Order: sequence, then C-alpha cells, then structure tokens
Amino acid sequence: MAAPKGNLVVGQSGGPTAVINQSLIGVVKEALRHEAIEGVYGARNGVEGVLREDFLDFRKEHDSTLEAVAATPSAGLGSCRFKPKEEDCKNIFQILSKLNARYFFYIGGNDSALSAGIINKIAREQNYELRVFHIPKTIDNDLLVTDHCPGYGSAAKYVAQAFMGNDADNRSLPGIKIDVCMGRNAGWLTAASALARVHPGDGPHLIYLPERGYTLKGMLNDIDKVFSANKRALIAVSEGVADSDGHTFLESEKIRAELKELGMGKLLDLFDLTGEVEELSGGAKRDAFGHVQLSGTGALADFLATVTKIYLFNKCGKKYRVRADTLGYAQRSMPGVVSEVDAIEAREAGAAGVLTAVTGDLSGSICFKRHQTQFGKYLCEPFCAPLEDVSGVNFPKGVKQYRPMEDNLITEAGNDVTPEFVEWLRPLVGQLPVKGLLKGESVKV
Amino acid sequence: MAAPKGNLVVGQSGGPTAVINQSLIGVVKEALRHEAIEGVYGARNGVEGVLREDFLDFRKEHDSTLEAVAATPSAGLGSCRFKPKEEDCKNIFQILSKLNARYFFYIGGNDSALSAGIINKIAREQNYELRVFHIPKTIDNDLLVTDHCPGYGSAAKYVAQAFMGNDADNRSLPGIKIDVCMGRNAGWLTAASALARVHPGDGPHLIYLPERGYTLKGMLNDIDKVFSANKRALIAVSEGVADSDGHTFLESEKIRAELKELGMGKLLDLFDLTGEVEELSGGAKRDAFGHVQLSGTGALADFLATVTKIYLFNKCGKKYRVRADTLGYAQRSMPGVVSEVDAIEAREAGAAGVLTAVTGDLSGSICFKRHQTQFGKYLCEPFCAPLEDVSGVNFPKGVKQYRPMEDNLITEAGNDVTPEFVEWLRPLVGQLPVKGLLKGESVKV
Repeated sequence: MAAPKGNLVVGQSGGPTAVINQSLIGVVKEALRHEAIEGVYGARNGVEGVLREDFLDFRKEHDSTLEAVAATPSAGLGSCRFKPKEEDCKNIFQILSKLNARYFFYIGGNDSALSAGIINKIAREQNYELRVFHIPKTIDNDLLVTDHCPGYGSAAKYVAQAFMGNDADNRSLPGIKIDVCMGRNAGWLTAASALARVHPGDGPHLIYLPERGYTLKGMLNDIDKVFSANKRALIAVSEGVADSDGHTFLESEKIRAELKELGMGKLLDLFDLTGEVEELSGGAKRDAFGHVQLSGTGALADFLATVTKIYLFNKCGKKYRVRADTLGYAQRSMPGVVSEVDAIEAREAGAAGVLTAVTGDLSGSICFKRHQTQFGKYLCEPFCAPLEDVSGVNFPKGVKQYRPMEDNLITEAGNDVTPEFVEWLRPLVGQLPVKGLLKGESVKV
Repeated sequence: MAAPKGNLVVGQSGGPTAVINQSLIGVVKEALRHEAIEGVYGARNGVEGVLREDFLDFRKEHDSTLEAVAATPSAGLGSCRFKPKEEDCKNIFQILSKLNARYFFYIGGNDSALSAGIINKIAREQNYELRVFHIPKTIDNDLLVTDHCPGYGSAAKYVAQAFMGNDADNRSLPGIKIDVCMGRNAGWLTAASALARVHPGDGPHLIYLPERGYTLKGMLNDIDKVFSANKRALIAVSEGVADSDGHTFLESEKIRAELKELGMGKLLDLFDLTGEVEELSGGAKRDAFGHVQLSGTGALADFLATVTKIYLFNKCGKKYRVRADTLGYAQRSMPGVVSEVDAIEAREAGAAGVLTAVTGDLSGSICFKRHQTQFGKYLCEPFCAPLEDVSGVNFPKGVKQYRPMEDNLITEAGNDVTPEFVEWLRPLVGQLPVKGLLKGESVKV
C-alpha cells in the first residue's frame, strides 16, 4: 500500500533510558527524508502532549541540536506516566486525525505498546489511514518478543561498571557490600553485575533475582559462607527480590516470621513507613500506575545491611563492616556511560520503524532478532512484530505480559547467573574499562 | 644531602578514589628509575601490612599490570582504616629500619599525613635516615595546604555527570528529586553538582553544604519556591548537612523541634535505628575512627524525601512526585568516569614525591599550587609542604584540621555555590558529556 501523505507525530513515555533519545532522533531524521511525511511533530510528555495539543516542530530544530539531544539521556520531548484508557485513546485519535497525522510513533515500554495498539484499532475502525508504531525502550529488558530492548545495554553497562568499582573498593577495604539494582519484575539489570568479574575471586559473589523466591535464612547463610571463605562479599540484589510466594521482602509475612525466629521480630516494621506516611499525608505512597514504590528509597538496602550486620554479630560476636547502596537513577540516565551497540540499535529502531511505515506495514513494534553466526560474531537486526504480541494484551489471563529471565540463565541454586547469560549479555554492553590486579605473592623483604 | 641507598616501602590508606592507584604507580615507576632505591615494596593494607610484614615486590610486576592497576579505581595494594598510635608508629619504624627501608611513602588523607609525621619524627630521633612522604588523596578535597587534592576531580566528575543525568531525568518526568552526596565536613563534592548546569533552568536548583547551618523550614521553603516556579526541582544535599549548631539533621534536636511544630514529631525517630540496632547487636553503628556512619545508608535521603512529600501534601493537598537517591560508593570508585587532569596529577604527585626524596628533601606532603595565568589557562604544579602543615597536628586546639569551602565560594543565602567556585572547579573535571535540549517553542499543527 502506498505511503499516505500527512504528518508524523512522535512521543516518549515511561522512565528514561540513556538512549531513548537515539530512538527519537532515529524516527525524526528518517522521517525528514521521506516525501510522504509532511510535518514531523514531537508531542511533549507523550500522549499527554497529544491530548493538550502541545507539539514541537522538528523541522525547525538544527541538526546539531538533534544530534546533541540524541546523545543525551532521558526523554528529550518530556515523558509521562499516563496510561490512557479507551476513552483517552479515542480523544488521542480524534486529535491525530484532525491534524492529518498519518504516522504515530510511541517510544516506550509495555504500556506504550498497549496504548499504540488501542489507537491503531480505533483508526482502523474509523477507516482512517494511520500507521502506528511502537519503538521499545526499557532499562529492565522485560519486553516480550525482542531479543533485548534498547536502553538495556547502557543500563547494564552502568551496573557492570558500578560493580567493577564496588568490587575493587571491597577488595581494598574488605567487608560486606550489598548493592540494590532496579528491576521490579525481572532480574536482567541486576544480573548484568556479573560482567564485573574479571579476575578470580572478583565479585559480585552472589546475585539475587526476582525470578526466584528466597528465604532470609538462605540468603544470610549464603552471605556468611562467602564472607567466611573470602573475608569479603559483594552482593547484587534486585529491588524486586521476593519470598517464595512472590511477595517482596519488605512486604513479606514469611520474611517477618523468619525475622521473629532470628530474634529480630521488630526489624521489618522499622523500614516500613507506609502507615506513618499515610497517617500524615493520606496515602502518598502508591504511584500513578499502582506499583509499590521501590525505586527512590534506600529502605531495602538499609534493611538487608542491618539484618546482615545483626545476624553476623549474634552468630560470631563480631561487628563486621556491612554497607549497602541503592544504585538509583544513575542506572537509567547516566551520561557518558553508554553502550555503543545500544546507542546504535536504539537509533536504528527508530529509523527502521519509519522505513517500515512508509514502505507498507500498517503498524507494529520494532524488535530485534539475534542471528546465530558461525564464529559467534554478534549480529542483530530489527524486525516488525505485531503490537499485540509485544503488549501481551491478548494473552490468556494469568500469563505474564513481561519477560522474566529464562531458566537456563540462572543457576540452580538461584543465587547467580550462568555462563550462557554472560555470553548473551557481553555484546550488548561492549567494551568495559580495564580492571588491573596486583597478583604478586607476598614476599619477605 | 645524597640519597641514601636502601629500599622503598609504599602503602595506601583510607577510602578509595578513582586515581589513588595512579599515585601508587607514580611512586613505583619513578622509584624503579633511581639507583639509590634498591627494592620497591608495597605494604598490603597500609601500615597494617607493614606491621605484619606483608609486602609485595613491585620489581616482579609486569609494566602492563602496573598500567592496568593505575587505571583501576580503589587501592590496588589494599587499604586500611587503621590510625596508628605513637606505640604502633614505633613498631612500624622498627620494621622499616630492620628492612633497610630508606623511603617510606604513604598515600592517604589527613590521618595518613599524621601517621607519616609521627614515623618521620621517630626516625629523626633515632638518627636513622628515612625519607617519609605523604601523597594526598581524598574525594572530599578537604585537605589543608593544597589547591585541590588528587581523587577529587574524578569524584567531582562523577557527581557532575550523575546530576546531568538526574536533571535530564527530572526535566522529562517533573517532580522533586533529592540527591545526597558524600562529604562529612566539607561540601566540595556536593558543590560539584553545579557543573551539571548547561541550559537555562537546569538543575541542581539548590545546593546544601555542611559549611552552613540550616533550618528544616528554610530548606522546605526553598524547595517549595523552586518547585512552584519551575514545576520541578533537583536538589543536592551533602551527607554532612547540619543545623546551626553543626549537628547533622538526623541527630539534631533543633530539627526534631521543627518537625514537632510541623506536626511530624515522630518522623525523625523512624529514621534513627541506633537504639534498635544497638539493642540487638551491642553498638555496631560507630566505625573504627569514631565517625558517625553516614555513608552506606539511605536514611538521610529517605528522611528528606519523606518530610518534603508530607510538607507539600499538608500545604497544597497534593501528592507530588518526590524521590531521593544516595549517590553511594560509585562517587569514589566508578571506573570509566575519571577526570584526565586528575589522573595525570595523581600520577605526577607520586612521581614528584620520589624525585623530591632522592634529590634532597627529607620529608613532606606533595601538594599542588595553582598559578594565575594571563589568559586563565589552567596551570598547576606540585610542591612539597611540611607533613605537619597538612596534618594540622600543630594547630592550636579548636582550629579545624581540614579545609572547608571558603566563604566566597558559597552564595550568601547558603543554598548555592558562586561562579568563582565553578570557575575554580571546571579545569579539575575537564570535558563533560554533551547535554542537548530541544528549545523549540510549542506550535499548533
């Protein structure tokens, strides 16, 4: 089908990544090359900008600005956390059709694929030719269909580098260090800490992922064992770490029961401020999507450090150095720590979406397929998948609409990743900084 | 005086920096070039390694290993938190003289200069020719005498980049973001967040430093004002932020009284686990130096986010997006985020120490002097200062043995830095990543 003449509207949604603007500029610069696409407009703050008709004209931006924005983390157009309902999508469509928009691009996660799917359906019902494309982005890498997701490689690089540094730090001042990484449902980002291992004995020595259920005693026992053997321990923990019922640690009755057995019955209450904050402000703790707010608080890390410190003290009678960091927003928006492959692919995804749109496909999500090659060289190319497959909207009830780490990527004990995972991840992150180690034996002078 | 023939012993002490190994390798590689210096030995874990006679022979390490170690953050020889007493220093001297060590180099902070000074004094009293040098390192930049300290530039670069990313993040998803930076006594590192400002309106919009005393109400009022004006706010807070009596927020009775007035009397208790942890483990909260443990816990950030959220809710009846991060260990040991000038100067400091030692000076600390140049070009060179001036050991009682930010570097309101500070800092950090911004006006399509 010939490409319809009209305008293109592009928006960004959800949490930032280091390369989400590469996808934006990929869409914009490819769009500027095609005659069928008349105006290239950016909606500020995603579909919120569409609804309030707040647009920016990309034809008026200088190429040097576009390239500078591409290299800058986080959503250059502004983002939103707004998940439009059917009614909102009808309004969005109305505005798009009024503006003679024939191409709508939405860069975001699972929810953005869903919104794009609804808008696409409405357009078809109305017999209005609108080509709707989703360009995936997420640092969590938990989107369906694609081999991996733009944004993940750079976040993984940050995590790997942070753990390289933390491991060197922990080697020089031995103790127990716990680092909590982002990723509510899937452990991909936490697992990237494994790339920090270069020399024998390097950490992280334990990796805890949301894909498995843990007991507190099992975890403390692991830490104790590693620490006894190495006199130090570096531990990666996902913010989504949960008990065997899938309840996150800070909200788990099982963990509470275990603490009681360990003589620390009160401890969990100290880290849960929900009641007090709600009392003082009327329930400000749930975010607009209804997720429990795990990012942006150090509670899990502080809880784990405290429980470990007390456990070891009560067991050994010694105060060990236990510290914890919550890696924070730098994971998703640190400039200067960007995977080159990730930046290239994010740009490519945007451009491929526009090319697909003008050459025939009516809608879709731009995913990546990794090819098996004879000598193991990394080779990945974009392809267009149905929006519904990526949003998972048509899945039967109870089937996950996101992608957890597959079983073969996690060790049987559940506290580490397998070599298959590291092999899969390495090309997405690319070159890491050097990590030197003085290997010399101790000598008598 | 001719350089004595004998061995060189070098050690590293205190918290890591990204370039402390540049200083180590600077000492080692310069030492290997001088005939007077026979063996070049590294003491593992600083003076602890000297006391247990645990040494590494640098002549046996390959140059490629030395260069890889130089480029790796944190102490390659291992560090220690041990502050030797007079008696320990006597033992250290005994061992050094037994080993025919004629050169002792200690890379570390204020405490290391003090230790070096004591060892130096003992050697002179014993008429043993030992040349004792201190090579300064700290991310806090709070050492006396020197214009700035190796390690600071790289940590400042990390903080600047993290704030660039956090600012872009905050621009794309507006709200209030609080980032807590390291620096107990001095605000140098927190102040480096100012380099993140590139475009008009860029954050950080407020910077709180330990050099000034604050009230909670003043701070909340500042935040409210910035947020009302810009619909977003990015705030840099030093972990050492204190009330007007110098008591840090989480330990301040004044802050407690203010909270009571604001109807949040209980809030501070929720973030202070000292009592509970001590009850369960017998006082594990103080570290070996007697400092209160501020790093490695997210309590201050979580407290500030919670109090801000509740304050604004009670004032405006709206739940605003308030998040906080504690920047953590990545500030001091992030590989790949290193200031080139810092790396060069750290190496230079080590090499200059050895050159000074073999050409005549008997002891000292290698500091940097910045020259005024006609066109403002950055020009800094090392010089040798007395150990006692750097450790501040002979200062009259009550005079600070560290260097806070000078008054002209902080604005009168006390919640920002001056242009003089930014001008002073910029060459120490060097090139930062690009930060693009779509400046286009909103258009009607």
